[in-house]
Order: sequence, then structure tokens, then C-alpha cells
Amino acid sequence: MQLSETPRTRLTRLSERGRAELADLYAVLDAGLVGHLGVVRYGAPLVLPMGYGRRGDTLYLHGSSGAGWARTLDGAEVCFTVTHVDGVVYARSVFDHSLNYRSAVVLGTAHRVTDPDRQNEALAAVTEQLSPGSWSYARLPTRRELAATSVFALELTEASVKIRTGPPHDEPADVTTGGRWAGVVGVRTVFDEAEPAPDLEAGLTVPAHVSERRPA
Amino acid sequence: MQLSETPRTRLTRLSERGRAELADLYAVLDAGLVGHLGVVRYGAPLVLPMGYGRRGDTLYLHGSSGAGWARTLDGAEVCFTVTHVDGVVYARSVFDHSLNYRSAVVLGTAHRVTDPDRQNEALAAVTEQLSPGSWSYARLPTRRELAATSVFALELTEASVKIRTGPPHDEPADVTTGGRWAGVVGVRTVFDEAEPAPDLEAGLTVPAHVSERRPA
Repeated sequence: MQLSETPRTRLTRLSERGRAELADLYAVLDAGLVGHLGVVRYGAPLVLPMGYGRRGDTLYLHGSSGAGWARTLDGAEVCFTVTHVDGVVYARSVFDHSLNYRSAVVLGTAHRVTDPDRQNEALAAVTEQLSPGSWSYARLPTRRELAATSVFALELTEASVKIRTGPPHDEPADVTTGGRWAGVVGVRTVFDEAEPAPDLEAGLTVPAHVSERRPA
Repeated sequence: MQLSETPRTRLTRLSERGRAELADLYAVLDAGLVGHLGVVRYGAPLVLPMGYGRRGDTLYLHGSSGAGWARTLDGAEVCFTVTHVDGVVYARSVFDHSLNYRSAVVLGTAHRVTDPDRQNEALAAVTEQLSPGSWSYARLPTRRELAATSVFALELTEASVKIRTGPPHDEPADVTTGGRWAGVVGVRTVFDEAEPAPDLEAGLTVPAHVSERRPA
């Protein structure tokens, strides 16, 4: 059931990888709502869930300027991991139970984005990842809101993608012995019907970018 | 949209917390299929997705004995984070967009479990978290399989739980201005119908612990 056994030594520079693997990396990142940011604080690892966005080979993060992790992120080595669970793999043996999943592990140094145009691009990327269509529909950030937000870039130069699909791989002896069911139960993320805010004015219908949203 | 802003200084010793918060921690952990383990390797953070299990105030992890992270985990400071995404919060403003979520961040030192009885308990916990019912249904590990598996314990003594629920919190001016829809689109994990392994013998029906599985 080990999901990932990727030591840093086995991670690969993207420039050395084929187009297919880069496409896999983009696909895993683009399908996520939340990733997990790893930083070292007080000498120990800290893993925090957060939204993100991608533009080309740059991953963008943002946070409240007052947040502890955001205050020390500029120039810090980080790891950003996105995982999708696709299925529970029931094997004949406990040992061969597993998960179908897709995961991307990105390593690098986070850099604060200070250029206003690039901040804007980054926030658009993060917003569109969370809620496609919102950047052109909702009210855009004010100068005060921008000042309260720290934006960081992480270049996608060192990353690892792991994907498991398909049925269980049981020991031949367990298959021969028989008598125990084996297979896969798919796991999916679904979106429910939109629930209007209690203070929403009457007569406003759910916009298409919300009502027609489907999992990536 | 910041999911978590929990610096170590704001994490709390569990002994100082109320019963309700401990119940929240258990609930968040018990509902997950995958958590994200943070370790420091070569001086940099590394975040890996993996299954886990809980028994009382102990979190159990396991991995292939040959895995890089498993070889250096005994005695290492770690962070283990479990996150559930419950909804996308569409606000009138981009700035107030958010996620409804539940997350638990556990900090501590991982210790290798060497006592066979406790290894057994740990593997049962991990298996039952992934696939409830499998420990009593599937073939149990052989001595050889146990030797190939490293088991680790992380005590739940220092942890943080964050939960966001409910509608968007827009600026009063944005509510007054009106004209933009706001609300929540719930996000849920669902299990699909069980798909038998291609090499499953005829006549074996899906056992109840698989067919009746529902999200935690």
C-alpha cells in the first residue's frame, strides 16, 4: 500500500524527461484543488494544505502576508505535493492491498513574486484552479487586498510523478488458492449542486461557470 | 483561500485541549484514505502521500523496508497532515473565495515498531483505514511479508485541527453592491461499484465489506 517511495535522488530534472511525463505532471497538478506544501520550520518538517495554480512551468502559491509560513517562504526550499486517490485496490492478501492514485511531488525554492503584473497572473492562476470562471466574474482584488496577500512562485524544474492504475497484483499462489474476492473500488470526487449564500439577493441565478462545473 | 496558517508555535499539546478538539482530530484522521508525510531529507522538505491508521492516540505508518524515506524515518521528526476538501466557496470578490475543508496536522517523532504484536496491530490499523473489513477477510501477512514491511508509530501529542464550514464571508460593501452570485459548491468523495479483478474465479460475489462501503 506504499503510495510513494520517492527519495530525492530518484526525482528527475524535468529537462531530462520526455514530453509524456511533463504532460502527466501538468495533468496531475491541473486536476487538483489542494496541494500540500512542505517547509522546514524550527528544524522540523511542516506540511500545510493550500490552494495553488499553474501557468506554464511555474507553480503559484499565495497566503495571507501575516501567516507564519508565508513570512519565511521567500528563498526557502520547499516541497509541494498534489495527490488524487482514484481507487481502493482489494487484493486476496492484505500485503497486496493498494491504492490507485496519481501524485506529483515538486521540489525547489520558493520565491516571492513582487512584480504587480506577475502577482496578478499568479492570483488569476490560483483563483482559476479553485474556481474556474471566477477571475472574470467576481470582483477583482483591491490594492489593499493585494497588499495583504503574499504570492510565491515555484519553478517546475524538479519533480516526480507517480501513477498507479488497474487491478490488484496478487501472488500467483493466492490466485490459485482462490476463495477470496479481489478487485477495485473506484474513488471519485464529485461536486454537489450549488448552494446560494444566505445573504444573496433574490433573482440572481447560479452562473454557468458554477452550475456547470465538473471535476477536472 | 488560505487553507492553513498554522505555525508550530500555534500548535497545541493535546493534553491542553478539550475533549471536543480531540474528537475533531480523531474524526479528521479516521475519515481519510491518504495523508501527507513530511520529512527533512538532505536538508530539504519532502512530502509523500501514504496510507495510515490510528489506534487510540497513536498514528501508524508503514512502508517497504527498502524505501528511502522508511530507511531514515526511525527517530526522525515528521509532520503528518490529513486534509478533506468539503466545498468550494464562491464569494462576490476573488479575495474572499475560499475552501470548506477539514485538516489535521500532527507533529512528532516517528519511531520504528519492532514488537511483533504491535506490528500486527499497526498493520491491522493501516489496512482497516484503507479497506475496512479486509483484515479479517484477506490473507494475513506471512513472516516474509512482515520482514519486507517497516512499521512506524507517531504519537498524537502535538496536533492542530482546522475546519472551515459554511457560506462565503464577503465584505459588506460587496453584498450591498450585489449583482454577483455567491455560495458554496459541496465537494464529496464517492466510491464506485466494485470492479472484480480480471483473474477472479467465477462465482465469487463481492463481499459485503466491499459492496456496502461508504465514505467515512
